[in-house]
Order: sequence, then structure tokens, then C-alpha cells
Amino acid sequence: MPHLHIEYTENLTGLNERELMRELNAVICSHPTVPDEADVKARIARLSMGNVYIGNQPDNRGFVHLQLQLMAGRSTEAKKEMSDGLAAVLRRLVPHPEGVMVQLSVDVADMDKATYFKGRL
Amino acid sequence: MPHLHIEYTENLTGLNERELMRELNAVICSHPTVPDEADVKARIARLSMGNVYIGNQPDNRGFVHLQLQLMAGRSTEAKKEMSDGLAAVLRRLVPHPEGVMVQLSVDVADMDKATYFKGRL
Amino acid sequence: MPHLHIEYTENLTGLNERELMRELNAVICSHPTVPDEADVKARIARLSMGNVYIGNQPDNRGFVHLQLQLMAGRSTEAKKEMSDGLAAVLRRLVPHPEGVMVQLSVDVADMDKATYFKGRL
Repeated sequence: MPHLHIEYTENLTGLNERELMRELNAVICSHPTVPDEADVKARIARLSMGNVYIGNQPDNRGFVHLQLQLMAGRSTEAKKEMSDGLAAVLRRLVPHPEGVMVQLSVDVADMDKATYFKGRL
Repeated sequence: MPHLHIEYTENLTGLNERELMRELNAVICSHPTVPDEADVKARIARLSMGNVYIGNQPDNRGFVHLQLQLMAGRSTEAKKEMSDGLAAVLRRLVPHPEGVMVQLSVDVADMDKATYFKGRL
Repeated sequence: MPHLHIEYTENLTGLNERELMRELNAVICSHPTVPDEADVKARIARLSMGNVYIGNQPDNRGFVHLQLQLMAGRSTEAKKEMSDGLAAVLRRLVPHPEGVMVQLSVDVADMDKATYFKGRL
């Protein structure tokens, strides 16, 4: 059930979406608390600059933000390991265009086990 | 205030977006804990395969994921009923293309009543 | 780290996306619990009517929905102030087309500090 939502601003030119998703998924799939790699579902959204506004002086700013949603029950340590691993991939793969302030962030959120449904066709 | 966010991968060809939203909303609108049908707001996003990555062997995989956001205060039983009802609609309406592993999931999340604002024009 | 997600239905013709983001960000940036304006990251999504379904009689309905994600630790009062300020901007700037029922809503959600990552390039 891990769900990964990736957002990035289009001024991060050169960002390779497929490579980024593959490497982020690799971190999650290899974590001991994730038994089935097929459960890891990543999606990426490229935000056009017209649809983004950063602070009150928005020029020459960009970001990559990840939200990882996990079934509740993992320890803070386990979640922190995943967050650190994802952050390391961002530091390695996100381009830094000249003159752009680039913010990176990772949010790890729990989902409620008692009411979650999962199934396969 | 119920908010329903529907995501599905475009390889689930033949999925009828309007029908799916109508039937999912019907489940929520008819629940005894939802007094006003007009409050139920669904949106659907079709994810292109280039923007999705499932596990570490992503070929021939797809998913439909729902997130239902509700004002906190409902019992786990009430939320489970809604989750089950939504899951039943997914099982009925989501197409299963030959050779594709299709994952279905429903996440029910609470929103904080003390800081939520709602109004109408 | 405040993240602001704005969604609106395209039948709210005349809505000025840049002005709305600027004014919403101004509320958040000026709050005493937000030390660095550059941290406030807003994105706006215009939802086509074909991708939205409101209640069970969806014609002539629209909405604007905000989700503000904040690092956990602020008081309910601080979060309520931000929610009220954002709601006031919506009441001031969201157009009300003749014959359309327009719903406005603001959800303020906490993010887990222990596992959040932020960095800059």
C-alpha cells in the first residue's frame, strides 16, 4: 500500500521523471517493512510555473515535494529511515538550475488500517 | 464536506469516469452520517503511464486509488461501512484488461473539525 | 514547510489564479508562526467539469477547496487564525457565477515533524 506522490516545478529542467520514480521506489521496495514491491505506487506531477506560487517573492524558486503514505503501525525509526533514503535520492537526482532556489521536502503520513481497503483484480 | 479523490491509471481502458463518480458518490450520499448530498465532492484524475511507476517491475500494472476525507467524529464502523461500499463499486465497475495486474485501494482519512472552514456563495 | 493545495472547478469563470495564490500566501507568510516566507509553497489545480461530480445532482455546482499542510506543533488557535484568514480571501476573491452553488472549504492538516525532511539546493 505505500503510495508515493511526487510534485516538482517545471523550472527544474532536466529532471528525469522515470529515473526519479525508479530510484525513489527502490528505496521503499527494499525497506524491510515493505513485503511486496508491487504494492509501491508512485505518481509524479510536473507543476507549471503558472500554477505555483512560492512565498511572496516567487521568482526563481522551485521545489520537489514527496508525500509517502504508509499503513499506520511502522515505528518512527522505520519511517525516518525511509524519509532519509528518499531525501538522499532527491539530493542525488534533482537538478539545480543556476540562480534557482530549490527546496526539497519529504512528508511521511500514516493511513488508518482499520478502514483501509485493498484488493486486486 | 466529504471529499473524494479518485486516481486511476490510463491502462484501465474502458473505465467510465462519470459512471464511477456517480456510483461512488451514491454510496457516500446515502450514508446516514452524511446529511447533505451536496457536500460530497468527487474529483477524478487519469494518470498517464509515463507518470506512474508501480514497484520495481512496473510493466502491465495499474491501479485505482480512492481517498475519502471526512470530518473527524464518525465511528470506525461508519467509516468502514463507507470504505466497504466504495470498494464494492470498484469491484463492480473497474475494468480488468487482459494481462494487467490491477490494484484497488480505499483510504479513509479524518479532517480536523476545529480548524475546518466551510461556506457557500 | 507550509504546503497549500488549491483546487477549483472551472465553472468559476473569472477566477484569477495568480491573484488568489498571492493573497492566500500573504495570509500564511504573515502569520507569526511562519518564520520564512520562502517556505510557503502554493499550487493551484483547475478541475474540468468532466472530472468533478458534486453530490447526486451535480449540475450548476462548483467549489474551491484548500488544504493547508503544516508542521505539527502549532496550537489550534494559530491554525484557526490561518484557516479564518484563508477563508476571508476566498470570500473576497472567488467569483459567484449566476445560478451556481459555490462551496468554499479550508482543511488544515498537520504533518509529522519526526519524519519530515526539508533541504535546499
